[in-house]
Amino acid sequence: MNKIPVAILGATGLVGQRFITLLANHPWFEIAELAASDNSVGKKYGDAAKWQLPFEIPEQLAQMIVLPCDPARVQAPLVFSALPTDIAGELEVAFAKRGAIVSSNASPHRMDADVPLVIPEVNPEHLALAEIQKQKYASNGYIICNGNCTTIHLALGLAPLHKRFGLKKVLVTSMQALSGAGYPGVASLDIIDNVVPYIGGEEEKVEEETVKFLGRLKGNQTDKMNMPSLQSSVSALETISVEYADIRVSAHCNRVATRDGHMETVSVEFAGDADAKPKYADIVAAFDEFRGLPQELALPLAPNRPTVYRREKDRPQLKLDRDAEKGMATIIGRLRECNVMDYKFVLLGHNTLRGAAGATVLNAELLYAQEML
Amino acid sequence: MNKIPVAILGATGLVGQRFITLLANHPWFEIAELAASDNSVGKKYGDAAKWQLPFEIPEQLAQMIVLPCDPARVQAPLVFSALPTDIAGELEVAFAKRGAIVSSNASPHRMDADVPLVIPEVNPEHLALAEIQKQKYASNGYIICNGNCTTIHLALGLAPLHKRFGLKKVLVTSMQALSGAGYPGVASLDIIDNVVPYIGGEEEKVEEETVKFLGRLKGNQTDKMNMPSLQSSVSALETISVEYADIRVSAHCNRVATRDGHMETVSVEFAGDADAKPKYADIVAAFDEFRGLPQELALPLAPNRPTVYRREKDRPQLKLDRDAEKGMATIIGRLRECNVMDYKFVLLGHNTLRGAAGATVLNAELLYAQEML
Amino acid sequence: MNKIPVAILGATGLVGQRFITLLANHPWFEIAELAASDNSVGKKYGDAAKWQLPFEIPEQLAQMIVLPCDPARVQAPLVFSALPTDIAGELEVAFAKRGAIVSSNASPHRMDADVPLVIPEVNPEHLALAEIQKQKYASNGYIICNGNCTTIHLALGLAPLHKRFGLKKVLVTSMQALSGAGYPGVASLDIIDNVVPYIGGEEEKVEEETVKFLGRLKGNQTDKMNMPSLQSSVSALETISVEYADIRVSAHCNRVATRDGHMETVSVEFAGDADAKPKYADIVAAFDEFRGLPQELALPLAPNRPTVYRREKDRPQLKLDRDAEKGMATIIGRLRECNVMDYKFVLLGHNTLRGAAGATVLNAELLYAQEML
Amino acid sequence: MNKIPVAILGATGLVGQRFITLLANHPWFEIAELAASDNSVGKKYGDAAKWQLPFEIPEQLAQMIVLPCDPARVQAPLVFSALPTDIAGELEVAFAKRGAIVSSNASPHRMDADVPLVIPEVNPEHLALAEIQKQKYASNGYIICNGNCTTIHLALGLAPLHKRFGLKKVLVTSMQALSGAGYPGVASLDIIDNVVPYIGGEEEKVEEETVKFLGRLKGNQTDKMNMPSLQSSVSALETISVEYADIRVSAHCNRVATRDGHMETVSVEFAGDADAKPKYADIVAAFDEFRGLPQELALPLAPNRPTVYRREKDRPQLKLDRDAEKGMATIIGRLRECNVMDYKFVLLGHNTLRGAAGATVLNAELLYAQEML
Repeated sequence: MNKIPVAILGATGLVGQRFITLLANHPWFEIAELAASDNSVGKKYGDAAKWQLPFEIPEQLAQMIVLPCDPARVQAPLVFSALPTDIAGELEVAFAKRGAIVSSNASPHRMDADVPLVIPEVNPEHLALAEIQKQKYASNGYIICNGNCTTIHLALGLAPLHKRFGLKKVLVTSMQALSGAGYPGVASLDIIDNVVPYIGGEEEKVEEETVKFLGRLKGNQTDKMNMPSLQSSVSALETISVEYADIRVSAHCNRVATRDGHMETVSVEFAGDADAKPKYADIVAAFDEFRGLPQELALPLAPNRPTVYRREKDRPQLKLDRDAEKGMATIIGRLRECNVMDYKFVLLGHNTLRGAAGATVLNAELLYAQEML
Repeated sequence: MNKIPVAILGATGLVGQRFITLLANHPWFEIAELAASDNSVGKKYGDAAKWQLPFEIPEQLAQMIVLPCDPARVQAPLVFSALPTDIAGELEVAFAKRGAIVSSNASPHRMDADVPLVIPEVNPEHLALAEIQKQKYASNGYIICNGNCTTIHLALGLAPLHKRFGLKKVLVTSMQALSGAGYPGVASLDIIDNVVPYIGGEEEKVEEETVKFLGRLKGNQTDKMNMPSLQSSVSALETISVEYADIRVSAHCNRVATRDGHMETVSVEFAGDADAKPKYADIVAAFDEFRGLPQELALPLAPNRPTVYRREKDRPQLKLDRDAEKGMATIIGRLRECNVMDYKFVLLGHNTLRGAAGATVLNAELLYAQEML
Repeated sequence: MNKIPVAILGATGLVGQRFITLLANHPWFEIAELAASDNSVGKKYGDAAKWQLPFEIPEQLAQMIVLPCDPARVQAPLVFSALPTDIAGELEVAFAKRGAIVSSNASPHRMDADVPLVIPEVNPEHLALAEIQKQKYASNGYIICNGNCTTIHLALGLAPLHKRFGLKKVLVTSMQALSGAGYPGVASLDIIDNVVPYIGGEEEKVEEETVKFLGRLKGNQTDKMNMPSLQSSVSALETISVEYADIRVSAHCNRVATRDGHMETVSVEFAGDADAKPKYADIVAAFDEFRGLPQELALPLAPNRPTVYRREKDRPQLKLDRDAEKGMATIIGRLRECNVMDYKFVLLGHNTLRGAAGATVLNAELLYAQEML
Repeated sequence: MNKIPVAILGATGLVGQRFITLLANHPWFEIAELAASDNSVGKKYGDAAKWQLPFEIPEQLAQMIVLPCDPARVQAPLVFSALPTDIAGELEVAFAKRGAIVSSNASPHRMDADVPLVIPEVNPEHLALAEIQKQKYASNGYIICNGNCTTIHLALGLAPLHKRFGLKKVLVTSMQALSGAGYPGVASLDIIDNVVPYIGGEEEKVEEETVKFLGRLKGNQTDKMNMPSLQSSVSALETISVEYADIRVSAHCNRVATRDGHMETVSVEFAGDADAKPKYADIVAAFDEFRGLPQELALPLAPNRPTVYRREKDRPQLKLDRDAEKGMATIIGRLRECNVMDYKFVLLGHNTLRGAAGATVLNAELLYAQEML
């Protein structure tokens, strides 16, 4: 089988490095081009990247010459973007216009009305939005986004509940790891023996993206779809849109002194009358039984269980659970009744795997398996 | 002036050590006796205590011989208790029966109907409950408690809002420091590069104690009191009780890898109609202006401002704020509207000063200033 | 192929848990029995062990009932010992007497004259000492030890130099990880934002064990051996002994706040005249080229390179290098001239893999491959 | 008494902030001017500095407008320099030429032949070198330096031994705190759960500066001085110089995840024959009894004891000892014989107090008390 050549934009950063490790031996994709900022261009990747991961860079990638993040120079039909926020907006559009499919971890386009913001287990049908972009750009290219690292795990943890019971309100407090801020990111003197109760823009992302992830695709055709039959929706483009979920989300985001893995405490209120509320066992069953397209399609990076509910009284914990299911699952625990809302629990997930690079790659795997590449 | 001789029970532990440093040069109290568990009894304090604080033990205290925690052996009229939970219950009663006033940091009696659970700025009038104990024990002794370290700062942070506007619901997530678990406490392998989303019994304490702190003293006389005229309430003993505040409190408690200082994210809903809700500026003013008896009486350990509201976007932080006001204040910041409840903010406080030993000493200072010793 | 049934003594501790993960899918060995202290006996292993590693316990091991550490109850012919120091001494002898081969990570017998203290790449010929034990115990059983976690990496790092050039003096300062102290081990309050410049008994172990590892096996037959032909040495038992290397070793041992991996700074002085000293390139070549029996025999746990020299100016580092070569190598870097001795460098290694459980298993693999089981 | 107006160059950085706290209420000095880099100039200090210390900035300093680091704009006769290395060299000379006395924490001029590199307890007589500068600059201005943070504590710890017994060789391994790298300094991802065995230029500074600190001032007059009679040396300027101590020093420098306080393990070899070596008790006495000019002159920042020897088996430790004696002492412990050299011990000290800003201020206090201002 011929692998699809792919490029990585922003290849030297922390998320870029995760792309490298996830794609180095991928069954469907082959790293053909590495691109980064000007001060890396022309260098060997091994010299340009300040490597942060406990594996060696594969030798032939270490030798690869870094290209500029220029759609005229980077030729691959599939592009993984770990571009910095300030330049991702324009550059990703430029890549889409020259025909590239851009699977992006960057934030600028996530909330665009025509950009699918996708977690494959949660809302694969939103991919239909890509057709609007294709038409707009008069190209085969488009942008598909995964969410913020905290949001992805929240949305993945909420999806089993929202799909089965309906949610009305969500209050979340995050304790986020340092790798979420990139490299060099947080100064050590700012975090050792400290908690920083503020991460710029983070709470807004959690509050906005969650309701898009859990939103419903509206439009003539797709309304009737059980499973995404994506091509069929083209004719109905003008009417396709995502109706955000009617959930009020409030977030408190904090930085703590951990390397990887975001922990979140969550209180939820369900829709419906008091007597229609799900019982404890129903909720646990929803977590236990949740599966989606990635599992059905056996995508290479898909976890066996996207949501794992742990019964121990003191789990999940970063050191024990963040790498479960290849770092691609959301691990949940401590479900109990909440005095203020209906139920409360904790969840955690790996922020640079399922919360970033792993999400971007899984989105591309979904496109491939759906024959959208 | 003759200082009042005091004893410290559980003197070798982490809270006991804080008692030492707070009382070593106290203007009103003088450490007369140090008591601890059997394996310390008979040793010099300096040899018995595994000292944890960045000050030297005062030399004459280091030389003091440790006594057993036995009311027959410890003679001081005022006793500070940092006893372990499993033995504090019985022992503190025994001390009260032999006539000692026990200012306790231990948890067993906090929720007893006749035990004042007091933050001097918040509910000094609850001290009236002590009279019930005196009568019950046929003694001049009684127990007075401060709360759990997380609860004290929560209650202190909520008090300005509840007193001025009335609160209905509170949802709090704590990120608690290691010193809150005592010594040796949390194993280093359990917390470095980790978050533990469970602290046994902590959430219950936060949920229960908060509504007692913010509760109202009921009874013939005291109902009419503006300021606590505590002696006058004796005749009405049978009718004195604390009516818990009608606030629903829900807590998520977590341990993080910090030495001192508990951080809490808080969402609140006010009582009353939507149009009667306080405005942003009203809430900040409530924090800014809050004062209580300790400030009025100029108690030695009293902070100038019991609640300090910081305007910076990323404050409070442990490293910068936990020691403010001698570690005796609750520092608040980041007030903003909450999508789910009315407002949200963060607060932090030093857990072994205002959250433990400092609270116990301040309670005793209040007794002294009120001529209740 | 029938696998050899093995038992793990002290199976619930941190090193015991590493044994579990190393042996769970071993090609030659099969875990048949798990033994631990009284409070674990009779429980399922999954309930008895406070699991510390980021992998799930294999299910059939989690269900295994824990046995007492009693040679009458534990039947396996090969026993891995992670017993606590205070009971390992007697118990390991009891196991050897009943015929078990005991591959031990415990310290009591390491310096016994008839116990081989072995790093397979460094001194496999010391295994000949086992025959003395067999005779003494009138059994097929004997004890074989690996060293202290700091010593193993030091000895492995020194071996290429001592074998090729001869060493005279070694001065080492260690910065040791928390997992080296077991679980619960070091209290978090003792190490966060701290360095503890003392680890009881550690410096003595480093100073003594190093010269035994690097010592020469003396005796009629074995003196002439190029490769260990272990059976042939039986007749010369009375004359077999280890002559300690004539190297003066001095150690400063420190605990720092890291999870895994011991870092060591090393200054060395070579034997011989000034003009016979090795050059920089000679030393690097010695590290680069060092190989031993495990590589020759392709033992399952053997690293490809037991000593890895890194050229970067700021390597090795724990986060990047401790897991190299499956955690079974010693990683070295920063070779430079020393103003006081001849050369200096740094080295690090994983303390619970090659520094403990990995070493114990590798020793057993050597026995198996040498047909000594 | 009129206080001497002083300026702080590099006032916004970490060392600059320590200057602020040390000088804010100084009995002899008064902060008159704050200067920093271009992006701070013209701002209020409170807005320009990203404050790192657990005290509030004194209000009138917070309001002070930041000046450029320009000798034409900064008028104070005494200037404290926390300038970055790359600009300190030229700028400090410019200040000296316009007549300012520059007490510098920066490194460029430390090893200049005419610049006194001074620890007041160790080598106050080196101040005589200042006269050479005055002549060279035809001004009353000159530069005086303190050393590198690791070196100061090493030199202070060695001085009692070198002065009393004579030292020949010193081998030191440091474990340095994060504040030593300034702010933002070390990235959190580079140090949490890690040790970095490399700090650029640090080992060279330790090896070079130590022998200058412990060196002897040579020249007609000063040779005969018991106590520094500094004015008398002017006539002999041409012959004044520092003869470096004849000690071979070798350093291994490491960064560990601590906030403040550098720990160092030290092995020393004394000069002289084996039978003339000091005994254990002699060495401890040397540490215990060491005093210098700052103690004699009762300088405001002087510690009572510049070297404190602790008898506990596991001291000194950062968390317990770095703040001893106001952070102005070197704390020593664990003296024992060394297998390779004569003796070994550990020492630690606060790196931004006695190791940086405290040293710079103490040097200025010495000048004041000697009437050299």
